[in-house]
Amino acid sequence: MPAVVLLSGGLDSATTLYYALNRGYRCHCLIFNYAQRHNREIRSAVRIAASTKCKYTVINLKFPWSKSVLTDKTSGIPHRELKDIYESSVVPPTYVPARNTVFLSYAAGLAESIGADTVFIGANAVDYSGYPDCRPEYIRSMQKALRLGTTNPRIVIAVPLITKSKVQIVKLALKLNVPLKHTWSCYTGGRHPCGKCDSCKLREKGFSAAGVVDPVK
Amino acid sequence: MPAVVLLSGGLDSATTLYYALNRGYRCHCLIFNYAQRHNREIRSAVRIAASTKCKYTVINLKFPWSKSVLTDKTSGIPHRELKDIYESSVVPPTYVPARNTVFLSYAAGLAESIGADTVFIGANAVDYSGYPDCRPEYIRSMQKALRLGTTNPRIVIAVPLITKSKVQIVKLALKLNVPLKHTWSCYTGGRHPCGKCDSCKLREKGFSAAGVVDPVK
Repeated sequence: MPAVVLLSGGLDSATTLYYALNRGYRCHCLIFNYAQRHNREIRSAVRIAASTKCKYTVINLKFPWSKSVLTDKTSGIPHRELKDIYESSVVPPTYVPARNTVFLSYAAGLAESIGADTVFIGANAVDYSGYPDCRPEYIRSMQKALRLGTTNPRIVIAVPLITKSKVQIVKLALKLNVPLKHTWSCYTGGRHPCGKCDSCKLREKGFSAAGVVDPVK
Repeated sequence: MPAVVLLSGGLDSATTLYYALNRGYRCHCLIFNYAQRHNREIRSAVRIAASTKCKYTVINLKFPWSKSVLTDKTSGIPHRELKDIYESSVVPPTYVPARNTVFLSYAAGLAESIGADTVFIGANAVDYSGYPDCRPEYIRSMQKALRLGTTNPRIVIAVPLITKSKVQIVKLALKLNVPLKHTWSCYTGGRHPCGKCDSCKLREKGFSAAGVVDPVK
């Protein structure tokens, strides 16, 4: 069966792609260049997609807003302790307005045109940064909107990682032979992961709890 | 109050813009260039937005699919009788996959970044071509998805024309002094409206029922 997979090049989306492939889906990956600070992840995504021999498309988007430190390079990426990431009740400045909604809209359009009933996204609501567009209730409601707003009333947004912890994701990735050394999670645009941003902190937590060394380090 | 208005340059979206302005909204128009066959409408949209002194942004999109005769210029625009437009139970080939969902996602992101609670779209479910993404149930469900997937749980998708007939829209446009001669509805890319596509047929019905001459003709 054909499926569309949103692939950012990070740990979660790469694991989601391998999960879908393992389930027998013929995947078409969508990779987005939205002028993100860490556009190095695009290279990772392309490499991962190409290594699986999946079809993939890179979409260049220009968001008419810059209300995120991920796209506005004049401001800094926050460094928070894990405890603060979990306890914070505010949406962090790395949130990009409507990002997953734009990505899922594109995925739905592509799914419609290739006859796919399933769109995979590596959204996670356990060890995550507190983005509204990663919550299960958002995913459910977006699925309903896509069912009503496209010609496919059966379209499914599949979120295999939604209730998994980072350590469970790392273990799943190892089981599925995800090429972890080619994934990229860090929000900063450097040559090496900064180890200080939310994304690095959450990734590190997963690897250390799984008792394995992160090959990207 | 700030608002985002999706402006295609057609009769419905121009009337929606004037409706919003009349209600006192400070409008930011979003105009999309998605390689539509009738990209002449973009010129109309820009002209209308500029004449109102509203802020506007033209977004260039490249959809990774061509499953629509509006973007695939190798196939023809269908010519149907009004009766067939109304009685048809199939989605016409002019439907563009996920178009309004992509547009509304962008609108929501812009709304979030300018602090707007309202997104206006000229969707209409009475005299329309049978697109799933113009139906009230879709709009309601998309609004819910946007409320959950952004940082604004109060965001509203305003659809002032949703239950209006084309003749009611023409009458409203006249009342609001919409510059009808600058609007463009025809799906074909010619210099003059073809008079034969669904969009021309529905527009003509509205003007003739209102007893006025369409200034675009």
